[in-house]
Amino acid sequence: MGGSLALALRGRAGTLVGVDRQPLTLQQAREGRVVDVITEDLAGGLAAADLVVLAVPVRAILDILRQLPELVPQGCRVMDMGSTKAAVVAAMSALPPAFEAIGGHPMCGKETAGLASADADLYRDKLFLLCRTGRTTPGLEAAARALVEAVGAHPALLDPADHDAIVAQVSHLPYLSAAALMRLAADETQWEVSASGFRDSSRLAGSDPRMMLDVMLTNREAVLAALDRYTADLSDFRQLLAAADEAGLREWMAEAQVRYAAYRRYRSGGEIAP
Amino acid sequence: MGGSLALALRGRAGTLVGVDRQPLTLQQAREGRVVDVITEDLAGGLAAADLVVLAVPVRAILDILRQLPELVPQGCRVMDMGSTKAAVVAAMSALPPAFEAIGGHPMCGKETAGLASADADLYRDKLFLLCRTGRTTPGLEAAARALVEAVGAHPALLDPADHDAIVAQVSHLPYLSAAALMRLAADETQWEVSASGFRDSSRLAGSDPRMMLDVMLTNREAVLAALDRYTADLSDFRQLLAAADEAGLREWMAEAQVRYAAYRRYRSGGEIAP
Repeated sequence: MGGSLALALRGRAGTLVGVDRQPLTLQQAREGRVVDVITEDLAGGLAAADLVVLAVPVRAILDILRQLPELVPQGCRVMDMGSTKAAVVAAMSALPPAFEAIGGHPMCGKETAGLASADADLYRDKLFLLCRTGRTTPGLEAAARALVEAVGAHPALLDPADHDAIVAQVSHLPYLSAAALMRLAADETQWEVSASGFRDSSRLAGSDPRMMLDVMLTNREAVLAALDRYTADLSDFRQLLAAADEAGLREWMAEAQVRYAAYRRYRSGGEIAP
Repeated sequence: MGGSLALALRGRAGTLVGVDRQPLTLQQAREGRVVDVITEDLAGGLAAADLVVLAVPVRAILDILRQLPELVPQGCRVMDMGSTKAAVVAAMSALPPAFEAIGGHPMCGKETAGLASADADLYRDKLFLLCRTGRTTPGLEAAARALVEAVGAHPALLDPADHDAIVAQVSHLPYLSAAALMRLAADETQWEVSASGFRDSSRLAGSDPRMMLDVMLTNREAVLAALDRYTADLSDFRQLLAAADEAGLREWMAEAQVRYAAYRRYRSGGEIAP
């Protein structure tokens, strides 16, 4: 996500400084000229920045936020791109007054992680959610919006608790559904017979477990609630099928089709690409 | 599926006769010159055919197979394209000796039904499974293989019970997972925030309920078994998350990622497009 952001900001920002500690990422960043300056030195990278963007898994964001007052005693402007927002916003709100901070979450991604998958067009026409914190100033909010628009995305404000409940439903639960499908269809005969439906349904199973672990642990209540509703709905279907209840089965499946059609109409009518 | 087959066979077969009873389909077939002859008369359409292809939902296939001895007393050659195979193969095997019959199932499809969605390239480079019946002759099997290859697909033989168990896992369960996701994410704010992961995970929810009802009712045991394994696996995840068991969560998610990577490698290495 950070690599894609840097590529998308090329020519649309001043000096881009990349901070990373993985040797492979450092080497790829240098070879690909992804940023103007690449460093392993977090404190040094932070010190001179007009705006710090934390593009790491959520618990790593929380770690850095905890270290910030010591790393940058004079304060700085910080935003993040983490997948859950309540914990991040709380940590940002707890920063000393010298800091300005705003939460961010671009609604896009890839099931492949790492700088090799970086894509300058990743953010184009996507929604980029912003969450105000106790440390959000009008100036920082304007800078965050300008950054979002510079990479071609559309900014929108959302309450962090609302954010986490919604993404539990439309992102974290779809990940779990895909992962369980993939865990159960594990032999080559099944793969050989499978078609595009399986490919699309299972795609999110490729998501980075480290990133998803942080997502799950920082959005536990909302994910558990979404998962319970999901398995309860599948259990309803199971009862209908076990009873060969034709009318009930038809209704269950027709409701899915009607809602899918409405969703597709809604997304194709909006200005944001589906 | 039938419309796509006719379009794919254009110029690669003799006279194409389409039989349908829906006024809209009849009109679209005439206007689109999808077939050479279009008729509502099933007995008439069957009588002169070298090979009859049943491209309707599974229980409609079973209905027609039951009527065949009366409709075509002299016998005919028949194959089908139904989504489940055990019931169809049993019905085909029970046909009088004057009939030749083979089961078929192309591993492709669209979440949109109807002739307006017909696509001449639907079968290209896809797997097209064939199931021998008690009425399969070498001549019919050769004709079925020739038809499959004429539309650009790859024929492969599979036992009907194995077929049904595999598609329960890689097709019917993915449909259910998508349908439940869609049933639970039903408001516009969720749709607005959702990204490509949700779009891909929910795509199969658009499947035709009439077709899926027949699938479910003719593959009940295998679907129930697959659904039980699926909800049990999600229940395992739920316990790990409720306990915030980091090691267990990481292992559960890593296994999904490892299997997904193996599946993608397997499919990109094979000659059949994923």
